[in-house]
Amino acid sequence: MTIYNFSAGPAVLPEPVLKKAQEELLDYKGSGMSVMELSHRSSLFEEIIADAEKLLRKLMNVPENYHVLFLQGGASLQFSALPLNLAQNKKALYVNTGSWAKKAIAAAQAIDNVHTKVIASSEDRNFTYIPQVSKEQIDQDAAYLHITTNETIGGISYQTLPDTGNVPLVADMSSNILTNEYQVKDFGVIYAGAQKNIGPAGLTVVIIREDLLNEQALFAPMLDYRLQAQSHSMYNTPPTFSIYMAKLVFEWLQDLGGVSQILKYNQQKAGLLYETIDRSDLFQNPVNKEDRSLTNIPFLTDSDALNQEFIQLAQQQGFENLKGHRSVGGMRASLYNAFPFEGVQALVDFMQEFEKAHGGE
Amino acid sequence: MTIYNFSAGPAVLPEPVLKKAQEELLDYKGSGMSVMELSHRSSLFEEIIADAEKLLRKLMNVPENYHVLFLQGGASLQFSALPLNLAQNKKALYVNTGSWAKKAIAAAQAIDNVHTKVIASSEDRNFTYIPQVSKEQIDQDAAYLHITTNETIGGISYQTLPDTGNVPLVADMSSNILTNEYQVKDFGVIYAGAQKNIGPAGLTVVIIREDLLNEQALFAPMLDYRLQAQSHSMYNTPPTFSIYMAKLVFEWLQDLGGVSQILKYNQQKAGLLYETIDRSDLFQNPVNKEDRSLTNIPFLTDSDALNQEFIQLAQQQGFENLKGHRSVGGMRASLYNAFPFEGVQALVDFMQEFEKAHGGE
Repeated sequence: MTIYNFSAGPAVLPEPVLKKAQEELLDYKGSGMSVMELSHRSSLFEEIIADAEKLLRKLMNVPENYHVLFLQGGASLQFSALPLNLAQNKKALYVNTGSWAKKAIAAAQAIDNVHTKVIASSEDRNFTYIPQVSKEQIDQDAAYLHITTNETIGGISYQTLPDTGNVPLVADMSSNILTNEYQVKDFGVIYAGAQKNIGPAGLTVVIIREDLLNEQALFAPMLDYRLQAQSHSMYNTPPTFSIYMAKLVFEWLQDLGGVSQILKYNQQKAGLLYETIDRSDLFQNPVNKEDRSLTNIPFLTDSDALNQEFIQLAQQQGFENLKGHRSVGGMRASLYNAFPFEGVQALVDFMQEFEKAHGGE
Repeated sequence: MTIYNFSAGPAVLPEPVLKKAQEELLDYKGSGMSVMELSHRSSLFEEIIADAEKLLRKLMNVPENYHVLFLQGGASLQFSALPLNLAQNKKALYVNTGSWAKKAIAAAQAIDNVHTKVIASSEDRNFTYIPQVSKEQIDQDAAYLHITTNETIGGISYQTLPDTGNVPLVADMSSNILTNEYQVKDFGVIYAGAQKNIGPAGLTVVIIREDLLNEQALFAPMLDYRLQAQSHSMYNTPPTFSIYMAKLVFEWLQDLGGVSQILKYNQQKAGLLYETIDRSDLFQNPVNKEDRSLTNIPFLTDSDALNQEFIQLAQQQGFENLKGHRSVGGMRASLYNAFPFEGVQALVDFMQEFEKAHGGE
């Protein structure tokens, strides 16, 4: 039975990447050592991390004046590190678009000397849309405006970025980094947990514009962006194997033609699923059409029992992790870069059968 | 050519563990998914993390009233997290035994409301011994006394623990966790980066006594021990593959007979190398004999040029990562649990040949 893994993260990885990792797991490039056994100060590992950075810079068209950091702790640690580095004794502006934005906001609010302000929210309609932000709403002396480019749980994403004037735009891009053609130059800081589109859990990518590095040393060295930038992400031992896996994923993506190509592929995958939902009398997607996510697609029937039955039957047929998050209910298909089109085709076939069996056409 | 990897970390892993990981890299237990692709909320992964904890508890004889946390960021992040959780507005006592102790001390000193006090140091003799600490030196109202049970760079380790009275003893055990028969009940907190005796880099183990969990929520959720304990290390996505690898290493260690057996093995390995050094007229180990580390053994000749030659020749014969840290110079052999006895035998043979070739006997 073919397994299709719709997990929201950790998520499916490209099969060629896993095969390559398997092949060289005990002997990396004839060294007689596993990548996991390499000293992070060895020339073999230094090459891996340098290549990973080079590839990511190319894929995302990262300008020269941005640092690329490979850190740990997930986006959740960045929720705290970001305001500590950029917004002490300043205003930090946030847009509240759902579960992940709320966590970022709460972490900023927990820091005494950060003046956190939520300037827009879509909580009034259970986070089913991206709220508009006009330039007039943005205090021009704020340290940044923080957005969550894609809400993994709600299934909404930014198609166009807010105009912030001179205020740096900061983004948690965990669930749609490398799936969209966002331009790094439009952001001051981008951060993302790896476990959706980059590699295994345990790696966090931070891309930060040079002039936004903290001026004063932070009390916690591991959270200090300038120190991490100066140390080329090697202030301490980095998550070496995860960085190696990320490098393999970047190579795979490069070989496929980069982000512009994968975007087309993602549009085909998401397009097919949204069309099927929109044509269906049984399933619906609760999100405002213009704000629909390419990577996380919630869908549900109007009956909890039927949703439950769908999830169970689907799992029996090899569709894994389709259960939606409890705050939305129903089902959710996460279609990250490595998720194959055939899996979406198989899912929509299954949805149509299911609908027929339950009295639809 | 057989490769022997003397790296101080990331370090050699048990071959059976790497083989097992390789075998199931694309298909964990018939799931059709890699461990790296499993949702951290899936039953398959929940079993992995529960087993990892159970095994570690058994191996280290962890009492019921201690929490075991699987975190990220290395010991370096704990250098900050520890005083933030335990010592705000309190005294934090430290023993300075070398490079790693110094980093822990500096991180505590960087926090305004922690009153950091170094009560003993071996800096006077370039950290070649463990300084004595008497109970009288320990303020009984201090939050803790922090020690580094093994200094990876200096090659010294604690054979007996200081008597701290009622003050919790806290240890950075990164480089000798699971290699010694330290008793968890003698510590308030133990923390360790995984990349020496546990698994790949990117995982940090924290073992903390229930009553030492912070009373007030910390401003940074990811650093909050109580929150991490309540979330069973799943406040956010944990480093799933690293935890899986740790589980495999724990199983391997259990199968070998646990810590008491590996300790004997480690004593044989280190014993052979120390004997060879002590018998040699060319090589010497700078450390006080009673304080010698089982896991990190520096040795050097009195000539930098000769050290250099030794390292180069050794590498040509498959002895990797023997170069000592620049602060000590010369060579260093790290002999963690997974390092094989045959590798030490081969090294001492090579040392004897080298000595003969350079006019020794």
